[in-house]
Amino acid sequence: LMLFFPRPLQDPIRGRPKEIPHNEKLLSLKYESLDYDNIENQLFLEEERRMSPMGFRCLEISRWVICGLIGILTGLIACFIDIMVEKLAGYKYQVIKENIEKFTEVGGLSISLILWAVLNCAFVLVGGIMVAFFEPIAAGSGIPQIKCYLNGVKIPRVVRLKTLVVKVIGVICSVAGGLAVGKEGPMIHSGGVVAAGVSQGRSTSLKRDFKMFEYFRRDTEKRDFVSAGAAAGVSAAFGAPVGGVLFSLEEGASFWNQMLTWRIFFASMISTFTLNFFLSIYHGKPGDLSNPGLINFGRFESGLLGALFNSLNYWLTIFRIRYVHRPCLQVMEALLVAAVTAAVSFTMIYFSNDCQPLGPERNEEYSLQLFCADGEYNSMATAFFNTPERSVRSLFHYQPGSYNPMTLGLFTLTYFFLACWTYGLAVSAGVFIPSLLIGAAWGRLCGILLASFTPTSPIWADPGKYALIGAAAQLGGIVRMTLSLTVIMVEATGNVTYGLPIMLVLMIAKIVGDYFQEGLYDIHIKLQSVPFLHWEAPATSHWLTAREVMSSPVTCFNRIEKVGTIVDVLSNTSTNHNGFPVVVQVLDSDEPAKLCGLILRSQLIVLLKHKVFVELARSRLSQRKLQLKDFRDAYPRFPPIQSIHVSQDERECMMDLTEFMNPTPYTVPQDTSLPRVFKLFRALGLRHLVVADDVNRVIGLVTRKDLARYHLGKHGLEELQLAQT
Amino acid sequence: LMLFFPRPLQDPIRGRPKEIPHNEKLLSLKYESLDYDNIENQLFLEEERRMSPMGFRCLEISRWVICGLIGILTGLIACFIDIMVEKLAGYKYQVIKENIEKFTEVGGLSISLILWAVLNCAFVLVGGIMVAFFEPIAAGSGIPQIKCYLNGVKIPRVVRLKTLVVKVIGVICSVAGGLAVGKEGPMIHSGGVVAAGVSQGRSTSLKRDFKMFEYFRRDTEKRDFVSAGAAAGVSAAFGAPVGGVLFSLEEGASFWNQMLTWRIFFASMISTFTLNFFLSIYHGKPGDLSNPGLINFGRFESGLLGALFNSLNYWLTIFRIRYVHRPCLQVMEALLVAAVTAAVSFTMIYFSNDCQPLGPERNEEYSLQLFCADGEYNSMATAFFNTPERSVRSLFHYQPGSYNPMTLGLFTLTYFFLACWTYGLAVSAGVFIPSLLIGAAWGRLCGILLASFTPTSPIWADPGKYALIGAAAQLGGIVRMTLSLTVIMVEATGNVTYGLPIMLVLMIAKIVGDYFQEGLYDIHIKLQSVPFLHWEAPATSHWLTAREVMSSPVTCFNRIEKVGTIVDVLSNTSTNHNGFPVVVQVLDSDEPAKLCGLILRSQLIVLLKHKVFVELARSRLSQRKLQLKDFRDAYPRFPPIQSIHVSQDERECMMDLTEFMNPTPYTVPQDTSLPRVFKLFRALGLRHLVVADDVNRVIGLVTRKDLARYHLGKHGLEELQLAQT
Repeated sequence: LMLFFPRPLQDPIRGRPKEIPHNEKLLSLKYESLDYDNIENQLFLEEERRMSPMGFRCLEISRWVICGLIGILTGLIACFIDIMVEKLAGYKYQVIKENIEKFTEVGGLSISLILWAVLNCAFVLVGGIMVAFFEPIAAGSGIPQIKCYLNGVKIPRVVRLKTLVVKVIGVICSVAGGLAVGKEGPMIHSGGVVAAGVSQGRSTSLKRDFKMFEYFRRDTEKRDFVSAGAAAGVSAAFGAPVGGVLFSLEEGASFWNQMLTWRIFFASMISTFTLNFFLSIYHGKPGDLSNPGLINFGRFESGLLGALFNSLNYWLTIFRIRYVHRPCLQVMEALLVAAVTAAVSFTMIYFSNDCQPLGPERNEEYSLQLFCADGEYNSMATAFFNTPERSVRSLFHYQPGSYNPMTLGLFTLTYFFLACWTYGLAVSAGVFIPSLLIGAAWGRLCGILLASFTPTSPIWADPGKYALIGAAAQLGGIVRMTLSLTVIMVEATGNVTYGLPIMLVLMIAKIVGDYFQEGLYDIHIKLQSVPFLHWEAPATSHWLTAREVMSSPVTCFNRIEKVGTIVDVLSNTSTNHNGFPVVVQVLDSDEPAKLCGLILRSQLIVLLKHKVFVELARSRLSQRKLQLKDFRDAYPRFPPIQSIHVSQDERECMMDLTEFMNPTPYTVPQDTSLPRVFKLFRALGLRHLVVADDVNRVIGLVTRKDLARYHLGKHGLEELQLAQT
Repeated sequence: LMLFFPRPLQDPIRGRPKEIPHNEKLLSLKYESLDYDNIENQLFLEEERRMSPMGFRCLEISRWVICGLIGILTGLIACFIDIMVEKLAGYKYQVIKENIEKFTEVGGLSISLILWAVLNCAFVLVGGIMVAFFEPIAAGSGIPQIKCYLNGVKIPRVVRLKTLVVKVIGVICSVAGGLAVGKEGPMIHSGGVVAAGVSQGRSTSLKRDFKMFEYFRRDTEKRDFVSAGAAAGVSAAFGAPVGGVLFSLEEGASFWNQMLTWRIFFASMISTFTLNFFLSIYHGKPGDLSNPGLINFGRFESGLLGALFNSLNYWLTIFRIRYVHRPCLQVMEALLVAAVTAAVSFTMIYFSNDCQPLGPERNEEYSLQLFCADGEYNSMATAFFNTPERSVRSLFHYQPGSYNPMTLGLFTLTYFFLACWTYGLAVSAGVFIPSLLIGAAWGRLCGILLASFTPTSPIWADPGKYALIGAAAQLGGIVRMTLSLTVIMVEATGNVTYGLPIMLVLMIAKIVGDYFQEGLYDIHIKLQSVPFLHWEAPATSHWLTAREVMSSPVTCFNRIEKVGTIVDVLSNTSTNHNGFPVVVQVLDSDEPAKLCGLILRSQLIVLLKHKVFVELARSRLSQRKLQLKDFRDAYPRFPPIQSIHVSQDERECMMDLTEFMNPTPYTVPQDTSLPRVFKLFRALGLRHLVVADDVNRVIGLVTRKDLARYHLGKHGLEELQLAQT
């Protein structure tokens, strides 16, 4: 048994000032990895070998069935959110509208403002309390969390039922509460949670086990389903099945598998179909954004605005991490934002004098007359006094002249700052729709201005086209996706002719934006100090080898190990390792101990719980042999070592790990370059990689943190510092 | 030095009858693998370590530039093929039309038939001779070959300039010659060749080296560009940039890399843009297939027809491989098909009495009046007397009533057999458009029949919709792609509302078709006995371990090896190995030789050619040190060992392999299960995987053939036999 000195002690972390718990130069040690590499131990191999070709076919079929279920459930959730938001927002706007109309002529509109702010605050209060006190992980869009999950980082509680419930209620409250947020990001997270739940055939939270799909109770299989769930979420949110698949691949997958892709695609299709089916039952008009005939080339400053948004949000997030970390403060900030949003909207509407005639073809549900003449409505109010989705749609589709440039300019400016302030609040909220709205507003503004310079040219006629291009550019500048976002936008608008200009602006927005600042999701991942593995090792890291990168010395176990030793190692809170190489020492020889396997903390916990000790097996012949099922039942919430009682007598027993360890862990020699180690790690989804010398002795262990530490900074390769926070 | 007994000698191959050189139970030994794993030897690492962050940025930029060039060139080639086919086919149809019109009333139409057949045969003769005598690899669509290339199989001469020239001329001749073929598949192959050429910055065929892009002269980088080229080809062929990316990923890639995907996407976009730009200059009307408003659900027998097509073609291909293997015979078969196609078309047109009025809105370029009244044209002639692309378009878009059911039924039947006979001929020819045409014809037929049963319902009104769905189903049933084909069809039709029905029929066509027979490309790959690695190991192969799978004993070299030994091993034609583990033996000890690296035949050849011998280095101090550039200059056509003269004195010299070998080859223990070995191999694109024991001794070597041998047959796991052919 060798001991391990944890890296953080070697790093000069302790000297850091207390008041900066987070910055982007740190790498948190609190995140564990997921095991995306199958543990091919004897139990697993025996089960696989016993299984007939028919058995594998059944598994394949059940994978398709699960994907179908994921699609249906995700579609239903989307449907529920959609209807609830419509209902609540409709009720709210109706009340305020009546109130405003009542007070417009008699004076005293400040009562309307207070009513508006109070209603918004009430919704946001419910949502904020749910998120801040019950499940903080449900805050935000959830896309960074799903990205991390697919990348192989275990974000605690991210795919639990409770998270889903809080997320759904939270997002309904935030949107109905008038915040500058969308419900699309949360839909993607919800899809992931649904997938993680359905594929396991049980709910640990509800303590119900349906005894189904037990084969899928491991990280590898679960990840595949979660990627299908995320795709189904995108598909439900935007009506974009292909875009969903691409999102899932672009943001998550590393190993492309054709069959898996088809299953993901299937889940996406089902999800869109379910949503459309039920929504069309609910109200006869499916709300798509079809407006054919757009062809034009985008403008280039888009990436700049996206980068500005990200930079502002970056500083705000740092501020929040430092000072706003108590739940009460978080709820209060959310309330403040809700009140400010209402106040700003009200002020803008109040002082706007952009009156437009109420056309017979326009069915404004919540048009405000205010100080306009009869038969007219306040144009600023259509932008603010609405759910953001409706505002985007009106910016795309209303006739030229529906908005005047002043209105659009003011709206862009205020909404930009409101959206930027809102993202990162302790509420469930997506950034897609606000980005689209900002982009659509300034896109339309540019369109109007261009049209005023070239009044005769018919190509510049429709400002709706500019709105669409602007929306794409703004969103692309903020989230920095290209392929999937193109497809999502094309599928959402329903016309392929938009494709080429959208592709171009997205590509340009990405290039311009990347020059200044990373994508919003990457910023948030970095600020959480998550050990995220990017697609490739930093380009200039070839001079690093496994020897420099690995952690050593490594805590190893013997193949037949004393129970006391195992308990002591597992109980040691200062190290808290999760994977242990298993070595074998030829008795009575001076040869070094050789690597013969790898075992995980979770497996040892199950073994200890079932008291699989050599002595007990001998004495009690009737003792049931431990099966794969016992490990699956304990997955994924393995008990902590403290909860397992091991008596003093038992500590003297021995445990035989042969059957349970992974007998063929991947190894690399110590001269392997970092990019080579990285590629192996990333392509196979490893959690532990053993570094062995030329006689197969364990000399080190490479984990996710050892690889994620290196990144390419301004001055070449930089190393992040490890921190316990 | 250990000796190796090649597997084929152990297999009972020699007893096989001579007259069955190919069947799907064989695995050919003539195909080598590509090295998609970087050879990280000392030279490479030194170069990488010397390179500044700026150098890496320049490389990244040149990757983008190359992708842009690939897109532009592929677009230009597509443009050239398109214009040439239009010109030649136009000329041909004009001549025949005048001839037919001359003889319609005076009698003697057999002269027209002969003229038609002779013109067709002339075109096909040119194309056939080019393909059969100059470059047989240019036959067919080229998609199976590109699939194999991306999978890691080295198909000789597949990405050479000569192949491109023959392919382009060949496809122009086949389409102009009236065969039932399309030009889309060949475009994909052409894109791949362009990419392989451009990315290397030189042409070995033309003996021109532009001294550019030298860094990309290795298999890994070249593959990435070839996948971009294939995507650009799809994009140019169908105007489907996103579809191109998905095609490339679905058919080729195994390791998904975000940056690579974006570059592929960029190449696709540029390609479509170039094509559209130049075609719109050439003739003012871009020919897109936009016809909005389709929504309906497809029919399910489609997969059956696809499977029937594939089965027929399967038997035909076996027949061809057995009997039609001399170039003269191949050209004669092509001529026969051309003549028969002309004769059948002529007969069908002659006996058809489906006359339709010449509308003012229809601009039939080659409408035949024949025996119809004045102001009418023969409807059968629009289907046969046209390039297949035009026929497909007319089936999609003509008004209800343009075709009568009898015409469509007869057309489907004859065209089905013609297309089936044509695919696999020694001409450059794609299967996309013929499949679409067959599907469109019977789809439209079904539409007409359905409409006649329900004459009042307006949804069944447009038979063009059925044509589109039928086309998708037929093509899906033949090639079995889902995601990429959906996107290609949607992008080609220009309307997203077609998406969901197309997805559904493609999914169903795939499921139904897979039940009976594999996809057409997979059949052809199998019949060529290519060692193709599928996405995963066969499900029931967990009981196999590396020990059973590997080849052993292995020919190893010492780190400092005698030149004579190396020359003898490389010259041994009975083994013809390409990778050799390098071992080190501690002098004067009885310890076993330990693995310390892996070296390739191609590297050894370069070393021998430059006479990098220890003795010479000592005597001639001025001798230039061998650099990575020397290996790159020799890539990819390394000379055979026979061309390198080694004198008897030199045979006694020693060679130090330390600097050149890959010092950190991936290894697995011998108990590793086949799926685990397979995953490592596939995910990392390996060519050789060393099996080592617990003291790091080489005990076996796993190559592509060892893994591709196993496949899941009707009776569980089956093993293919290895054959030299």
